[in-house]
Amino acid sequence: MSEQPISRYPVPDVMELPEDMRDLILGVQEKAGFIPNVFLALAHRPDELRAFFNYHDAIMLREDSKLTKAEKEMIIVATSSDNNCLYCVVAHGALLRIYSKQPLLADQLATNHNKADITPRQKAMIDFALKVSNDAGSIGDADYENLKSHGFDEEDIWDIGAITAFFGLSNRMANLTSMRPNDQFYTMGR
Amino acid sequence: MSEQPISRYPVPDVMELPEDMRDLILGVQEKAGFIPNVFLALAHRPDELRAFFNYHDAIMLREDSKLTKAEKEMIIVATSSDNNCLYCVVAHGALLRIYSKQPLLADQLATNHNKADITPRQKAMIDFALKVSNDAGSIGDADYENLKSHGFDEEDIWDIGAITAFFGLSNRMANLTSMRPNDQFYTMGR
Amino acid sequence: MSEQPISRYPVPDVMELPEDMRDLILGVQEKAGFIPNVFLALAHRPDELRAFFNYHDAIMLREDSKLTKAEKEMIIVATSSDNNCLYCVVAHGALLRIYSKQPLLADQLATNHNKADITPRQKAMIDFALKVSNDAGSIGDADYENLKSHGFDEEDIWDIGAITAFFGLSNRMANLTSMRPNDQFYTMGR
Amino acid sequence: MSEQPISRYPVPDVMELPEDMRDLILGVQEKAGFIPNVFLALAHRPDELRAFFNYHDAIMLREDSKLTKAEKEMIIVATSSDNNCLYCVVAHGALLRIYSKQPLLADQLATNHNKADITPRQKAMIDFALKVSNDAGSIGDADYENLKSHGFDEEDIWDIGAITAFFGLSNRMANLTSMRPNDQFYTMGR
Amino acid sequence: MSEQPISRYPVPDVMELPEDMRDLILGVQEKAGFIPNVFLALAHRPDELRAFFNYHDAIMLREDSKLTKAEKEMIIVATSSDNNCLYCVVAHGALLRIYSKQPLLADQLATNHNKADITPRQKAMIDFALKVSNDAGSIGDADYENLKSHGFDEEDIWDIGAITAFFGLSNRMANLTSMRPNDQFYTMGR
Amino acid sequence: MSEQPISRYPVPDVMELPEDMRDLILGVQEKAGFIPNVFLALAHRPDELRAFFNYHDAIMLREDSKLTKAEKEMIIVATSSDNNCLYCVVAHGALLRIYSKQPLLADQLATNHNKADITPRQKAMIDFALKVSNDAGSIGDADYENLKSHGFDEEDIWDIGAITAFFGLSNRMANLTSMRPNDQFYTMGR
Repeated sequence: MSEQPISRYPVPDVMELPEDMRDLILGVQEKAGFIPNVFLALAHRPDELRAFFNYHDAIMLREDSKLTKAEKEMIIVATSSDNNCLYCVVAHGALLRIYSKQPLLADQLATNHNKADITPRQKAMIDFALKVSNDAGSIGDADYENLKSHGFDEEDIWDIGAITAFFGLSNRMANLTSMRPNDQFYTMGR
Repeated sequence: MSEQPISRYPVPDVMELPEDMRDLILGVQEKAGFIPNVFLALAHRPDELRAFFNYHDAIMLREDSKLTKAEKEMIIVATSSDNNCLYCVVAHGALLRIYSKQPLLADQLATNHNKADITPRQKAMIDFALKVSNDAGSIGDADYENLKSHGFDEEDIWDIGAITAFFGLSNRMANLTSMRPNDQFYTMGR
Repeated sequence: MSEQPISRYPVPDVMELPEDMRDLILGVQEKAGFIPNVFLALAHRPDELRAFFNYHDAIMLREDSKLTKAEKEMIIVATSSDNNCLYCVVAHGALLRIYSKQPLLADQLATNHNKADITPRQKAMIDFALKVSNDAGSIGDADYENLKSHGFDEEDIWDIGAITAFFGLSNRMANLTSMRPNDQFYTMGR
Repeated sequence: MSEQPISRYPVPDVMELPEDMRDLILGVQEKAGFIPNVFLALAHRPDELRAFFNYHDAIMLREDSKLTKAEKEMIIVATSSDNNCLYCVVAHGALLRIYSKQPLLADQLATNHNKADITPRQKAMIDFALKVSNDAGSIGDADYENLKSHGFDEEDIWDIGAITAFFGLSNRMANLTSMRPNDQFYTMGR
Repeated sequence: MSEQPISRYPVPDVMELPEDMRDLILGVQEKAGFIPNVFLALAHRPDELRAFFNYHDAIMLREDSKLTKAEKEMIIVATSSDNNCLYCVVAHGALLRIYSKQPLLADQLATNHNKADITPRQKAMIDFALKVSNDAGSIGDADYENLKSHGFDEEDIWDIGAITAFFGLSNRMANLTSMRPNDQFYTMGR
Repeated sequence: MSEQPISRYPVPDVMELPEDMRDLILGVQEKAGFIPNVFLALAHRPDELRAFFNYHDAIMLREDSKLTKAEKEMIIVATSSDNNCLYCVVAHGALLRIYSKQPLLADQLATNHNKADITPRQKAMIDFALKVSNDAGSIGDADYENLKSHGFDEEDIWDIGAITAFFGLSNRMANLTSMRPNDQFYTMGR
């Protein structure tokens, strides 16, 4: 296991975190078998950690979303790679392999979504996510019409945009703190 | 008052929102004299509205932050302008004029922070915020050292980065939804 | 009133300028109530000042132009903002508010013309101006055809291009000299 | 001689131009042996033609300028190439060959000024001109200091900036009108 | 095993290739256990296949090179990722894992070499390779001096540049032909 | 004749090169009347020189290619100029003038292919070559369809791509080594 630091900021002892955050982290650890480093790195500021995961869940666990779990991870992997965010590419690449049951897909999307084994509808979704990430100011009706021609509705488009925007925040925090992905993520689901 | 839509998505009736969000919005209205459109536009999804403002407050109201209210708004105006986000430039430009008591500052920062009436320390802060916004993947020790030479410590740098990251999310959501700034913001504090 | 320098170059005494330039400036002062700083900054070299305003007038006051005064200022504000020129955004933003009688328009165009209260025809005009400003080498028949589909003719297109080109020069001189907008411009027409 | 059009706009008969412009053009023709197409293309609007050459002369013929004729043309060729302006690269490339007596220099500067047979001082001059052309908003004291370390003073820097700004205008007008260089320019001075 | 096409161009039967190319490919197959698709995709034009591997070997197997096998693959993975070349990132990522015995390194370099587990010397090497890839025209003495300060000599620098240049060719051919990496590469060396 | 160095690396004595390379170079010298500097600069490493020209010939002398000699040189001049490669622009500009019998064409393509005297089919070819050079990862079916609408088939497209890819390598090696074009090339074919 790597001895490299998880973050350039101090990482607190989980047992000394506020109770709700401690329970959140221990719950994740029980389920995953390890604590993803994003919890530990952001725990340097427990209030921001709490806000981060509440927002994460509001977007990623929204009940009415028609995007599949795999599609959400596709968006995250493609935009995080474009933002050069090692933590998110590696951790969400693992989740994408698991949810999609396509073990090659994460590496494909991280390198070049134009050459990935995805549908034209999914390619349109990722093209739009990359536009939200890089040039949101020029999004307009033509983008909405294009996505609708692929079967997305306005709520789906909000989902795509909100996931991209949230992980844009996450990518910047991970790069700011030099957040290190857990070694386990690299091989999960391959 | 403008008759243009506030958002390309439906805007709910405030009185039909979940109680905590309704109270939040009515409280803001009482204090400001009007409801900033960001509340109404994001209220299309109350869970995301709640998550957004909780995260906003965790960062912007953090007790130990050594950045002044005006400095936080400087970061927001400069990066939001770079992201072509009309809502945030206009709304936070108003806040910046009020907090800084420099009525010209918001327009200066929105156009070219190199020509704004700010200190070299503040210029270094904004240069870094723009790097977090545009090229976070290349942030490294040299950036930290430079900010420290201007008197910022590691916690200040987290603040600068977190504000930039959060408003990067906000900018993308505002552009996605074509969120319209309230007319009042344009003249506040001039 | 600000005590900041108007220009990084020496600013001459108006009364010691060549007679025609002195009269020009005093005439503007009488009409506007103040001397816009562009006259004082460029007066460091009276021959260039004279050439600048003769060219300005040849383009901006051309009798047969079918562009409205407000449309010309729209072009200037949008392209000057894209060129990060504080002087031109602030001074011509004031003129745009006055000519258009739309007090919000200048700030909208300076931040994101895609979200401004303009017609599709005006948006096409500004898209073209931005292309002249940033990538004139790839202008071709398709651009002319597109503008014609919005009702512009070849002479209108020359006008759009010439205004953009002239203020591109102006933006560069203003940034070179750190030309400071008069404080009055910030609030005119709001 | 090429039969291609000189401009996408109508080219007037020189003899029907206003007297001063007619005399200007006939004077140039007598001296050069041919009429450079920029005169004919811009003559579509005689007032703008007049303003263009008055401004040109104010900058390029300024008596006190310490830049050599060849250095001025170096700036023009390098920035015009960066702006993909065929007319200016070819016409001013000819002038540069003649003034510098270095027949290879224009092609070198048009392709890559880093590999051209110029002095470090001239390289600094061209680096600065390219910054004025592409990113004038970030010019600051450090740029002035660097040029001063190569022996330029503030007036030289205004010259470099003003030439760049003026030919930036010229490049955009030439690209807008598809101005065609005279065939003669391609071989002059080789 | 994937049923996706290896290339958008026809792939010949290995047994019908010119003898030397057939032997080359069968030799690789015997050693690796499978035929890397680059051989099959380029075999559409046997003369170019032969030239490609001769050039490859001249650079990659140069006897006097002081770069390690792993360092050469670091250059390839980092620049191929920057060029969005799926084939080269996946295939050379496998080689890098094997040669470096650092199973995480390829994914790190493909996402963000600033966050990879490499030495400052190796970071300087990759920074230079990315400059050769993206902006070779501005390489100059300062780049050479910087690399020498990290212990590289002029021959090492030629090696870094030549590897980058050759794989820049390879990246473009792979993207042109939609060359598909063999599934085996994704998991080798993890 | 210039006294400037041909390359920043040592240039060997032709008579001491391996026999095949010596004969290659002497053959070229006999035919051209001089030794193009690319042979001398790359001869610093004879194995790479050999590989370079074998690859060059495999692409440029391919018997079945339907591109004309002039069209191949158009691709090289336009992409080499975009890569700021002085050697290739000057040397292949000479070849283009000779093969095309259009003495102005090389300078036109080096500055702005949109303003060059070429056919729409040739413009499409160069647009595609520039995309291979700058953004090969996004090449897809739409690019192939567009070229087919201009009469190119899949083999022609491989030719265009392969020439671009090979000279992309060549451009990077020339810039790395500061390879200097022979003075003769500047005037050949004018």
